[in-house]
Amino acid sequence: LKIGILGGGQLARMMILAGASLGIEFRVYDPDRSATAFGLAPGWVGDFDDIETLSVWAEGLDAVTTETELVPASTLAALMNRVEVRPGPHMQLVCQDRLEEKAACERLGIPVAPWRLVSSARQLEAARQRLGGELIVKARTGGYDGRGQVRVGRRGSVAQAWEALGSRAAIAEAVVGFEREVSIIGVRDSAGRILTYPVIENLHTDGILRRSIAPAPSVGVIRAQAEDIIRALMEDLGTVGVLTVEMFEVDGRLLVNELAPRVHNSGHWTLQASETSQFENHIRAVAGLPLGSTVGEGAALMWNLIGDLPDPRSVLSVPGASMHDYAKTPRPGRKVGHVTVTAACPERLRERVAAAADTGIFPAWLLDGLAAPAPAP
Amino acid sequence: LKIGILGGGQLARMMILAGASLGIEFRVYDPDRSATAFGLAPGWVGDFDDIETLSVWAEGLDAVTTETELVPASTLAALMNRVEVRPGPHMQLVCQDRLEEKAACERLGIPVAPWRLVSSARQLEAARQRLGGELIVKARTGGYDGRGQVRVGRRGSVAQAWEALGSRAAIAEAVVGFEREVSIIGVRDSAGRILTYPVIENLHTDGILRRSIAPAPSVGVIRAQAEDIIRALMEDLGTVGVLTVEMFEVDGRLLVNELAPRVHNSGHWTLQASETSQFENHIRAVAGLPLGSTVGEGAALMWNLIGDLPDPRSVLSVPGASMHDYAKTPRPGRKVGHVTVTAACPERLRERVAAAADTGIFPAWLLDGLAAPAPAP
Repeated sequence: LKIGILGGGQLARMMILAGASLGIEFRVYDPDRSATAFGLAPGWVGDFDDIETLSVWAEGLDAVTTETELVPASTLAALMNRVEVRPGPHMQLVCQDRLEEKAACERLGIPVAPWRLVSSARQLEAARQRLGGELIVKARTGGYDGRGQVRVGRRGSVAQAWEALGSRAAIAEAVVGFEREVSIIGVRDSAGRILTYPVIENLHTDGILRRSIAPAPSVGVIRAQAEDIIRALMEDLGTVGVLTVEMFEVDGRLLVNELAPRVHNSGHWTLQASETSQFENHIRAVAGLPLGSTVGEGAALMWNLIGDLPDPRSVLSVPGASMHDYAKTPRPGRKVGHVTVTAACPERLRERVAAAADTGIFPAWLLDGLAAPAPAP
Repeated sequence: LKIGILGGGQLARMMILAGASLGIEFRVYDPDRSATAFGLAPGWVGDFDDIETLSVWAEGLDAVTTETELVPASTLAALMNRVEVRPGPHMQLVCQDRLEEKAACERLGIPVAPWRLVSSARQLEAARQRLGGELIVKARTGGYDGRGQVRVGRRGSVAQAWEALGSRAAIAEAVVGFEREVSIIGVRDSAGRILTYPVIENLHTDGILRRSIAPAPSVGVIRAQAEDIIRALMEDLGTVGVLTVEMFEVDGRLLVNELAPRVHNSGHWTLQASETSQFENHIRAVAGLPLGSTVGEGAALMWNLIGDLPDPRSVLSVPGASMHDYAKTPRPGRKVGHVTVTAACPERLRERVAAAADTGIFPAWLLDGLAAPAPAP
């Protein structure tokens, strides 16, 4: 079986590593000739809208998948005549366009933060009046990892914000005072069977994911909500493969923030702590194979290595720690790897992280949000 | 970090898949241009004694390891001047030569079956007299997967056996009536730290491994013996990386049968059921990184797919089952993949295998040796 991946970053790398055990061959396509996944599979360089090159690339492939929202839905539509494309263009389109995302959620009765579509500074001002307070304005399309977003305070300049955003059609959202950010990852196979992973608690700064805890602590009231939300979305979108839903928790209620039609940074811990990782399950779904169990045991903490890598000899000396190096050139702000620490329970996880923070191997901020230590006897 | 692997079969494939997550790049060398590991890393074609080509191949590598005993120790010795070689030539030499193996064991006080070195049909006849009964005669060097071995009964023709073996120097061993075959896999890092995996119970037919159960059932009395044996051997041989010891259990006592200076077929289940697989730990040791935990939970059954592959849709539909496809051309007698089934305990493992055998997905012979079902309530 041969699968093509549009995009050659670390997500493609981890899909290839998962699929290779199943005897699947891969072919990668990326605009950047130094794409890291080219180290593990034959790589083609080209733009994501170069249908001519892509058509040749897709010859002999059994299926095509993507690792990035940067691939236009129209490209996926063009490839559909030649090969199975998962996710399909419809799902890609919805997840690329914040207006479509909001519309899909509202149609399915899934809560989102109050919002307005704005196409001018004047409309933005009107939205601020209507939504009553601080706004976050997000370009309708093309934004990710915090790009294409701008905040406008109660008294901030609307004109300035509009210009900063590039005067593009945008969604103005009321800034909600959330308790925390969470995500849920689900996978659906071509027969419509759905499995979900546990709810994950995430921390972002500057729009970039910093760390994830799985399962999210104190998940009681939101677990069923998160599962209902992702199931409704996967069925509605006809997902084949992985879908990720990022949400805010506000007073015990979940508001959907963003959809990603793919494996997700907040699910990297599934490599260590789930019977079947998000990467293997995505590839199984794309290949038409049965899904593997998403059950896991214990607790996991994952954080991104941004800019450069620590010494692997230190990190790997910590019990339960594994380190992924994406084989990318270090650069400020770039995700170059991640660390996962697993343990049999949340308390033990905190102990492990605390011990490594004490000796300076791990940063101390990782302890925020981990289960408090048991009281001394 | 760049590591070269001598040999490009499934063991090299699985090492590459384990090491890629650590950001390690690989370069493979194999005499066969269709070697399966060439699909995952740049491959060079050449003979294992072509030192000139190998010297160019090794340029820029940080370390070299092997996946096969077919690499001459002299090749490893020649490469040592240029690059770190793990395992080193001494360990390779001992494991390639049954005489050296026996000598190492006897020097360390490790039990082996009664044996004699024979260099002629006449000596073979003398050995039969002395060892008193049925013999298995194994070429001193060059045999694996059952090749280079011949059995001689109490009254069989010694001359015929000697000719069948190719009139080569050989070890004549008394055939011992063993209860079962077991193996143990250990790993030692460059600082001398040793970790071992649980004892494994194996079944061979025609000299080829058919299935492994881990941990071996009723392992009580032999566990400490197996650990003592492998620790003594790793320390004596100065192992850096994985060493595998295959043994016979006879009346609660272990006799060493064979050493393999590498990751081993009987340890494939560590991919699913150990915190760190044998492949990752081998690569960590070769790369000078700290070892990962060899702790595991539950029980695992692994069997080889020989000749051709079953339908992955059937195999993967079984709870706890994973299937590895080595991406090799099917051929009678060839190992083309393996299946691992894991479960929380031996009883549950048997239930899973029995259910899949009932529906014809798994062969029924797999049930032999698995824990008997609990009595009905």
